Amino acid sequence: MWAAVLRKGNIEVTQVPDPVPGPGQVLVKSLSCGICGSDLHTFQGATGAAVMARRTGSPFDFDPERDLIFGHEVCTEILEYGPETQGSLKPGTRVTSVPVGFAGGRMHAIGFSNDLPGGFAERMLLTESLLIEVPEGLSNEQVVCAEPMSVGWHAVKEAGLSTDEVPLVMGCGPVGLAVIAGLKILGMHPIVAADFSPLRRRLAASFGADVVVDPKDVSPFKQWDEVAVPNGRALPAMGYEAFYSAYASRRPCVVFECVGAPGVIQQILEGVPPNTRVIVVGVCLTVDSIQPVFAVNKMMTLKFVLGYTPDEFRESLQHIASGKINVRPMITGRVGLSGVLQAFQDLQNPMQHAKIVVEPKRQNWYERTLSRFAGVGAAESR
Amino acid sequence: MWAAVLRKGNIEVTQVPDPVPGPGQVLVKSLSCGICGSDLHTFQGATGAAVMARRTGSPFDFDPERDLIFGHEVCTEILEYGPETQGSLKPGTRVTSVPVGFAGGRMHAIGFSNDLPGGFAERMLLTESLLIEVPEGLSNEQVVCAEPMSVGWHAVKEAGLSTDEVPLVMGCGPVGLAVIAGLKILGMHPIVAADFSPLRRRLAASFGADVVVDPKDVSPFKQWDEVAVPNGRALPAMGYEAFYSAYASRRPCVVFECVGAPGVIQQILEGVPPNTRVIVVGVCLTVDSIQPVFAVNKMMTLKFVLGYTPDEFRESLQHIASGKINVRPMITGRVGLSGVLQAFQDLQNPMQHAKIVVEPKRQNWYERTLSRFAGVGAAESR
Repeated sequence: MWAAVLRKGNIEVTQVPDPVPGPGQVLVKSLSCGICGSDLHTFQGATGAAVMARRTGSPFDFDPERDLIFGHEVCTEILEYGPETQGSLKPGTRVTSVPVGFAGGRMHAIGFSNDLPGGFAERMLLTESLLIEVPEGLSNEQVVCAEPMSVGWHAVKEAGLSTDEVPLVMGCGPVGLAVIAGLKILGMHPIVAADFSPLRRRLAASFGADVVVDPKDVSPFKQWDEVAVPNGRALPAMGYEAFYSAYASRRPCVVFECVGAPGVIQQILEGVPPNTRVIVVGVCLTVDSIQPVFAVNKMMTLKFVLGYTPDEFRESLQHIASGKINVRPMITGRVGLSGVLQAFQDLQNPMQHAKIVVEPKRQNWYERTLSRFAGVGAAESR
Repeated sequence: MWAAVLRKGNIEVTQVPDPVPGPGQVLVKSLSCGICGSDLHTFQGATGAAVMARRTGSPFDFDPERDLIFGHEVCTEILEYGPETQGSLKPGTRVTSVPVGFAGGRMHAIGFSNDLPGGFAERMLLTESLLIEVPEGLSNEQVVCAEPMSVGWHAVKEAGLSTDEVPLVMGCGPVGLAVIAGLKILGMHPIVAADFSPLRRRLAASFGADVVVDPKDVSPFKQWDEVAVPNGRALPAMGYEAFYSAYASRRPCVVFECVGAPGVIQQILEGVPPNTRVIVVGVCLTVDSIQPVFAVNKMMTLKFVLGYTPDEFRESLQHIASGKINVRPMITGRVGLSGVLQAFQDLQNPMQHAKIVVEPKRQNWYERTLSRFAGVGAAESR
């Protein structure tokens, strides 16, 4: 099959052996697959990511010297069942799954595994017991968004919010948007969000943010202050008076850090009022600098969250199916396998893009020609 | 009166005007006053501390260019009531108080104020409504320890512990010891503690730690592992197997960071198992480096705590009075006002000291001579 393969630091569109379903596995066709920030991070430093995965005890454990096929936000179609399966959904049924699989007696993170290909390939292997049938009427792209939406839904559920709190969402990429959507579903109001990109600010508003700011023009913390004081009057700058009166006159602050870049946590520590809780959803992979005394003097809590549960994944798919979340405006690009590398570069520019999906059946001229002449199993032949 | 005054970065033992009690205030004699880590930090960089206090919105707001008298862990004796007081406790009664006062229409942190002297002076001003009568049979030094014990008691109460959790206390200075005492009172078992100083390890055991390690010899995290696995068998090194099986086979980990030095938080992020909660009680005043991905992948929570409530202060004094906490072994030195500077230097060596108390009535030969010949109001004359 054709696949976009991460091979020694490059992404090559090449042919690889078709995966063969083992016990409990199902061979599926990858219809559409989202590109995630963690794909970009891992592409930029696969060795570092692998080392860090091992050091932090993460299951995202792979050998950067071996081939790897990215893609863990998947919408697929059942092709063929392996041994020891029930086969309860018939071939041709559209399915999705949490990106977890088993091979060689151990668990793999699909899309970050040397042994189980991700969705940037024509075919992949899913686990039958984890399959979820796609609800009626959803496009492939909507299904793909269930995975990133789960990340935000998990974060807002883990936050254990009270409706008195006023959330501030820092960063409106796919994860920030998912957090905003989750906050909206939980009935939080008002929701303040901040991003430098006009595109992402528009998306934040469409996902449910009530006040959206450009940090270039307005401090998100000052803006939050205006919104969170019930009578609309801004408090004086931090000082010991504010320190003791803030609790009474302001609603509590909860920040969702959805940027994942160094320096952002310290900005939050400096900008927020005392007693603020910070839910860290963004993943900063580099060393970061903080001044703990800010967190101490403000009696803050930093809660770092990761992933989601299978239930939260199902719920997110339902949110999309029921129309509670309109993910369509978030998809800003569609590419075939040969467009993956360019898409990785394009996604570096948050002014232009939020989510790009890979459709393995999309082919460029070169692939179409090659498959026509060579008669090899290119996507279009299926 | 005589006082050890912080004046432009030095500590000078000198005479300053006697404080005069204003409305609601009581003039008291300072009998004994503990030296706290925050006194040392502020001495080492008063300007930085003042700037940071203002930037973080802390009430510890003072002008480093003006005189300041340290000392906020106090045992005192009532001398004289100011106007608008009830006078319900008679002069000569021993009293303590949370180190907070009011002057010039605003709140002050006693011991970090230019306007209200701390306990490193012969006399000070307390607020009548905050006075607590010293229970029968307590020595001045035991009373002094109520304040540092409150810091630990607050930390363990804020932690919201479940008895299933196994605490690891990093650092066994006065704050670490107070945390251990608080954990013991809450019935936590076992308690693991770590410190490089043999003296402080002995104190940790006497305060209630069940397992005490020297990080030079044994990783506190490995030691914690041994203790927290119910059947006593150490788990394999971190990896994806441990990641998923750890919850079932280990009791949850809660770390109390009581060191407050740069690098310690990152050590904790690297060393602990997934889902660990960290209660940060130590105050790191410098810039610190962390790798947030450890906290993300391990789904950790960092809760930064500060101070205590007046109720927690009262409870801590009761813990000492009822014998639940034996603070006596913690006092490793006693000095007069002229010994403050040397004591500040001695406290840099954790091998030798835990808590040094200042007794303003202690005098050296110079002070005794001076007061005898000059007839000035030196401590001994009262």
